[in-house]
Amino acid sequence: MAVVMTVEELERFFLAEFPQVFHSKSGLVIEAVWERGCRVRQAFRQVSVRPGGTISGPAMMALADFAMYVAVLAAIGLVPLAVTINLNINFLRRPAPRDLVAEARLLKLGKRLATGEITIWSLGETEPVAHATSTYSIPPGKLGGIIEP
Amino acid sequence: MAVVMTVEELERFFLAEFPQVFHSKSGLVIEAVWERGCRVRQAFRQVSVRPGGTISGPAMMALADFAMYVAVLAAIGLVPLAVTINLNINFLRRPAPRDLVAEARLLKLGKRLATGEITIWSLGETEPVAHATSTYSIPPGKLGGIIEP
Amino acid sequence: MAVVMTVEELERFFLAEFPQVFHSKSGLVIEAVWERGCRVRQAFRQVSVRPGGTISGPAMMALADFAMYVAVLAAIGLVPLAVTINLNINFLRRPAPRDLVAEARLLKLGKRLATGEITIWSLGETEPVAHATSTYSIPPGKLGGIIEP
Amino acid sequence: MAVVMTVEELERFFLAEFPQVFHSKSGLVIEAVWERGCRVRQAFRQVSVRPGGTISGPAMMALADFAMYVAVLAAIGLVPLAVTINLNINFLRRPAPRDLVAEARLLKLGKRLATGEITIWSLGETEPVAHATSTYSIPPGKLGGIIEP
Repeated sequence: MAVVMTVEELERFFLAEFPQVFHSKSGLVIEAVWERGCRVRQAFRQVSVRPGGTISGPAMMALADFAMYVAVLAAIGLVPLAVTINLNINFLRRPAPRDLVAEARLLKLGKRLATGEITIWSLGETEPVAHATSTYSIPPGKLGGIIEP
Repeated sequence: MAVVMTVEELERFFLAEFPQVFHSKSGLVIEAVWERGCRVRQAFRQVSVRPGGTISGPAMMALADFAMYVAVLAAIGLVPLAVTINLNINFLRRPAPRDLVAEARLLKLGKRLATGEITIWSLGETEPVAHATSTYSIPPGKLGGIIEP
Repeated sequence: MAVVMTVEELERFFLAEFPQVFHSKSGLVIEAVWERGCRVRQAFRQVSVRPGGTISGPAMMALADFAMYVAVLAAIGLVPLAVTINLNINFLRRPAPRDLVAEARLLKLGKRLATGEITIWSLGETEPVAHATSTYSIPPGKLGGIIEP
Repeated sequence: MAVVMTVEELERFFLAEFPQVFHSKSGLVIEAVWERGCRVRQAFRQVSVRPGGTISGPAMMALADFAMYVAVLAAIGLVPLAVTINLNINFLRRPAPRDLVAEARLLKLGKRLATGEITIWSLGETEPVAHATSTYSIPPGKLGGIIEP
């Protein structure tokens, strides 16, 4: 099994289909995709700061969800209607007020369900700030990707 | 056990401590608090719309996290350093492009940990769009609330 | 939507298909089923006791999983191949060395997925000892039940 | 940080404190412990078989919980009162009717909470059958291990 979409194709898809999430000022970057995984990055944003100089939980949840979706799309092609059915996140350490990096890894890629784990770090750190698992539902007949952006 | 903070006190706290989350244009409203529970509301926002006219998963996760935090504060008083350690969410139905209403209910309120469940509906619907459980860690010595906004 | 299986039909099914789980010495009882929910009971068993006189976590997980499966079967009929895809459990209080009672409630009953929540109490207590959520995958074409025990 | 308990010390502890779980016929083996991780094994047992020749979900949940507890004890010493507060498990593939192997890895080892992930395989397979995350609560003052079996 190989990657079926490149970083450039993924970025074009997100710019076209998810302009509220992925735009020139969102600070979201798809850094790399590989077989059953990816690395994405969220630039530090003042809007996500919380008391004590840390980054909000919802900002990390959104990044985990984005990383998982990128890993699914990179593996199966463009499926805008794939939807998250479950996300479980453990917050491990207070993130520093810096960029966050997330890596997603698919644990299972079935016909109807894809499950993966996502680890998030503050840029430059080795101990993770959060760890999530997530399951996506894949609509019937969409495997392989049939929507062109 | 009774509520130790009113809706007005909670709103003042959020306006002062979490201005990035809770402000005049955020569309977030604390509708009611009661013993070990609360109801909050997120006005519909264009930024949360996704393909097909639904509302994004991260918008629902953020609302679940907010509802849980309000329920914790209403029960134990102002603890800005209480932090989410776990959130698990199941997405059940595609929400309509309308306001979301969330109710949180504490299942346990211990000295160190508070666990609750949160149900989210599209305004006016009876079947939930999402259901979450979450655990907060309460810093030692903070029970009862010692920070005044 | 109504219940499609009675307690007696469910018990016959479990005795026939899951004799390792549900037998005369298992201490498991299906107490009641209703629209989208059920109540089951696990008699106290010495094998589940842990240091301090409490009941093991895995015994509560097994009971949560059983309650969810009963609620699914009561709603859709006999589907032996329905399988758990996710279970998340929060342990809230140490159970007393007594019977456990669990109630399951379906939050969603779709064609492919059923999601529910399960609350577990020590018999006679009002505060729960554990709370779980779980999702079952329903094999295509099985809705309504086509397997007769 | 290094391992503070050997496999032999762990086995003696479980034989003494958890005789219902870990005994000569339980089929449970602690294969190895290392810094912040361990590998355990559950021999195939007829009692865990389910329709279709697979292994029950609760058997996998129990193994995940055991693996996590071993990893915690190996890292912090004997803490019988450490308790699971959360376990989330995703079932990925039907296990074969064979031994199960589980590896646990601590993602965080704090003073009050330890969080880890656990992966389970059918013996000899490379694709996991289940993946779990779990959080343990560590009683105050126990870090380092003060209870001798």
